[in-house]
Amino acid sequence: MKLSLMDEKAGKGTLQQLVYDTVAKGIATGEWRESDKLPSVRVMAERLKVHRLTVLKAYQQLLEDGIVEVKYKSGYFVASMAGGDVSADSLASSPPWEYQARSLYVNRSRLSDIHRHQVDYQMSEALIDPALLPNAFLSNHVKQVFDMYPKVLSTYSSVSGDLELREEMARYFMEKQGIAVHPEELLITTGSQQAIDLISRSLVKSGDAVLIERPTYSPAIDVFVQQNVNLLPIEITPQGYDLEHIEYMMRTEKPKLFYMNPTFQNPTGYTVPATQRKALVELAERYECILVEDEVYHDIYFGDPPPLPFFYYDTEGYVIHIRSFSKYVAPGLRISVLAARPELMKVIVPVKALSDNGTPLLTQKIFQHYFFSSRLQEHVAKLRIALELRKARMENLLAATDWSWSSPGGGLNLWIRLPETINVDALLQQCLAESVAFVPGRICDPLDRMESWIRLSYSYLSEVQLEEGIRRLVEISDRVKQD
Amino acid sequence: MKLSLMDEKAGKGTLQQLVYDTVAKGIATGEWRESDKLPSVRVMAERLKVHRLTVLKAYQQLLEDGIVEVKYKSGYFVASMAGGDVSADSLASSPPWEYQARSLYVNRSRLSDIHRHQVDYQMSEALIDPALLPNAFLSNHVKQVFDMYPKVLSTYSSVSGDLELREEMARYFMEKQGIAVHPEELLITTGSQQAIDLISRSLVKSGDAVLIERPTYSPAIDVFVQQNVNLLPIEITPQGYDLEHIEYMMRTEKPKLFYMNPTFQNPTGYTVPATQRKALVELAERYECILVEDEVYHDIYFGDPPPLPFFYYDTEGYVIHIRSFSKYVAPGLRISVLAARPELMKVIVPVKALSDNGTPLLTQKIFQHYFFSSRLQEHVAKLRIALELRKARMENLLAATDWSWSSPGGGLNLWIRLPETINVDALLQQCLAESVAFVPGRICDPLDRMESWIRLSYSYLSEVQLEEGIRRLVEISDRVKQD
Repeated sequence: MKLSLMDEKAGKGTLQQLVYDTVAKGIATGEWRESDKLPSVRVMAERLKVHRLTVLKAYQQLLEDGIVEVKYKSGYFVASMAGGDVSADSLASSPPWEYQARSLYVNRSRLSDIHRHQVDYQMSEALIDPALLPNAFLSNHVKQVFDMYPKVLSTYSSVSGDLELREEMARYFMEKQGIAVHPEELLITTGSQQAIDLISRSLVKSGDAVLIERPTYSPAIDVFVQQNVNLLPIEITPQGYDLEHIEYMMRTEKPKLFYMNPTFQNPTGYTVPATQRKALVELAERYECILVEDEVYHDIYFGDPPPLPFFYYDTEGYVIHIRSFSKYVAPGLRISVLAARPELMKVIVPVKALSDNGTPLLTQKIFQHYFFSSRLQEHVAKLRIALELRKARMENLLAATDWSWSSPGGGLNLWIRLPETINVDALLQQCLAESVAFVPGRICDPLDRMESWIRLSYSYLSEVQLEEGIRRLVEISDRVKQD
Repeated sequence: MKLSLMDEKAGKGTLQQLVYDTVAKGIATGEWRESDKLPSVRVMAERLKVHRLTVLKAYQQLLEDGIVEVKYKSGYFVASMAGGDVSADSLASSPPWEYQARSLYVNRSRLSDIHRHQVDYQMSEALIDPALLPNAFLSNHVKQVFDMYPKVLSTYSSVSGDLELREEMARYFMEKQGIAVHPEELLITTGSQQAIDLISRSLVKSGDAVLIERPTYSPAIDVFVQQNVNLLPIEITPQGYDLEHIEYMMRTEKPKLFYMNPTFQNPTGYTVPATQRKALVELAERYECILVEDEVYHDIYFGDPPPLPFFYYDTEGYVIHIRSFSKYVAPGLRISVLAARPELMKVIVPVKALSDNGTPLLTQKIFQHYFFSSRLQEHVAKLRIALELRKARMENLLAATDWSWSSPGGGLNLWIRLPETINVDALLQQCLAESVAFVPGRICDPLDRMESWIRLSYSYLSEVQLEEGIRRLVEISDRVKQD
């Protein structure tokens, strides 16, 4: 700082001093009182006939000397007695910057908009309560990873991901599910979010037809919307899909791919039965439509394990399997695996290279050595029980209402239909104001309807917190109810 | 595996057994001899009038029993005496998968294509030799991070990045360079590669005009090509740019942005002088063209520190500053910072949310606590000396040749012009065959020319390795020379 200011002073420091003194004098003479807004950099520059940068530097010097303070997006103000602190919350109107984004260029991520709200009763994020994860064990475990790979922080991973990890993962797929996959057919991604994004960028172009479940994982809608594709909704029910309708759509619309979340689906919790999986893979092969199977909750089941993945039934290379493990191992690691046959991998990997050149090696190594430890299987078994208990708790708390849902056999969410008399947008607005968050069904609907539905996650709050969270939610819903 | 097979057996196990026996008998009777290729899943299914999946399962059972082996991308073979091992290297022709990628959908990342080659004398990747990084210190340091943040692996970062890190980074920008930036104006990305990608996805659309240096960082070209923009090259020389030409281009072509790498540029090592920086920011504001300043090597200088960033001179919000630190702190962390004013951040952050929902928290925390430690500054000072020595070594080794370059004041690369008599493509091909890698100038040129130039990185090889690497390079260049 100092150095740069010296430069300035050396150059036209006298001018900068002029600006500095003008403001100082103005405050002394009372032209500007405590917490008055100073003229913008531009206005002051014009008034004093100096360059805007000179004004900016003078203002920054005044800031440093505690004579003025800056309010975010708002400008410079005469410092209050409290002294110049930068307040981030100041929701002041017009930014001092000239650049204005053209709306055409604005993308949306509606789920993250909701998550940005800090609330006490978080039922909008399908996250697992950190208290349910073996943090202490993990920390110690990580230290071993560094002893094993002393240079793990100095080396890049390959674009596809660490080979050791992909080899162990290939063995895992064979042993656990009888799926023969080669390490070269696996890509490590930073969370399944990235896997979906990479697929949308490498396999579809603007205007392509894409099948998507209705309702579905909201960010997936936003990703495909950003790609400007023609999204065609496929209803999902507790019984799965209407295959005749899907065949009709594949024949008439020639979709490039079908994005599915077929196991304990997000948000509904529905699971597509094995018979349909096999039949749908055959349709996909016949109509050359790639099935993108996003298996986020595969291992979070409460009763019987779910059916085998679509990928298991694929003999011609038309299924892409996305598997997320780190969600229940260590969410902070953001490790997911994308499995696809060579011809597909060939087009996906270059986009991974362009988007981040490979997932950090450290998180891959930590994941690898924990995931394939016996300790993990014990952990997952315990976790299933804990999550089932929380699900039961939420269902009991909602039993008194006239809301309806079908109890999921796994996953982290309840998909609930509210009476028409409740306006979900109003409900959400009021809930956020009272520190309760949930996901409105509309943003999970590619058609932007389903106004009477909400997604409630039971995985993040303790049973005690759930009780208060649901109490507030129900109480607020009574208040916003229109008769 | 077993379980799934049981299912199959329960169903049409007799059919699967039929396939299994057909192959077993065929081998016994000599129909198929050792390492013969078996009929494809599809052919065998048609021959035996069974479902392809039945054949696949039978083949997988034969594989498990060691009777057949699978060759990657090639199919199933009668096991050799060695026994069924999965060979990744088998470069067999046609894949057994039907899906064929449509070329329209194939993206490219030419630099990572070159890096995929494993060579002993790596002068193509601008990476810092792990031996120059304080690995032991970092490992111990990381253990403290876990003691400080026991739940770091159980929690997500916010989309924009860890707030603590962004606050410290904002202080750093102010103290080091007199740049006033609010934490909300900072975005943590997974390497600068991701920062460039996010900008290309959020600020330009297909057909937009984009200015780019010639030559430039090759992956940046690929990123913008993928966005299908109209790339307009701006020559960069040891003196910087031709500002009159840039103004002409801005006025006539109305480019949305200008991607720059103005400090110890990659690949040339050139640095744009301070006077031009200030003038160009004013042009950008006048013509509403966003300047994207990619500062990868800012702290890797050998003589005087480089001029202040373009971002310093911006008073209207038309500059985006990308800063990569982890390259010389701990490359494996892949931490970069993108600084932009609120109106720009508003459009960039949603794309970050869609692309990976935020950089992993662990790597951010490790970076934060190391980067802002006094230990780091000592490290960087030592690193500069070590890198300057390697640069000098490479230049001495090349002194005997008739190759020409201008010695860079920082960064990791030499940008070298070879005599016309050397065909660089032929040189690269032969070098890779003899375990030497460099970057051909053509892929750094948005116009795909500059056939006589190459980029050599001196940062990754030890001085001893440099000697042999350069010896081979020069020796091979003599061989491929056409007179």
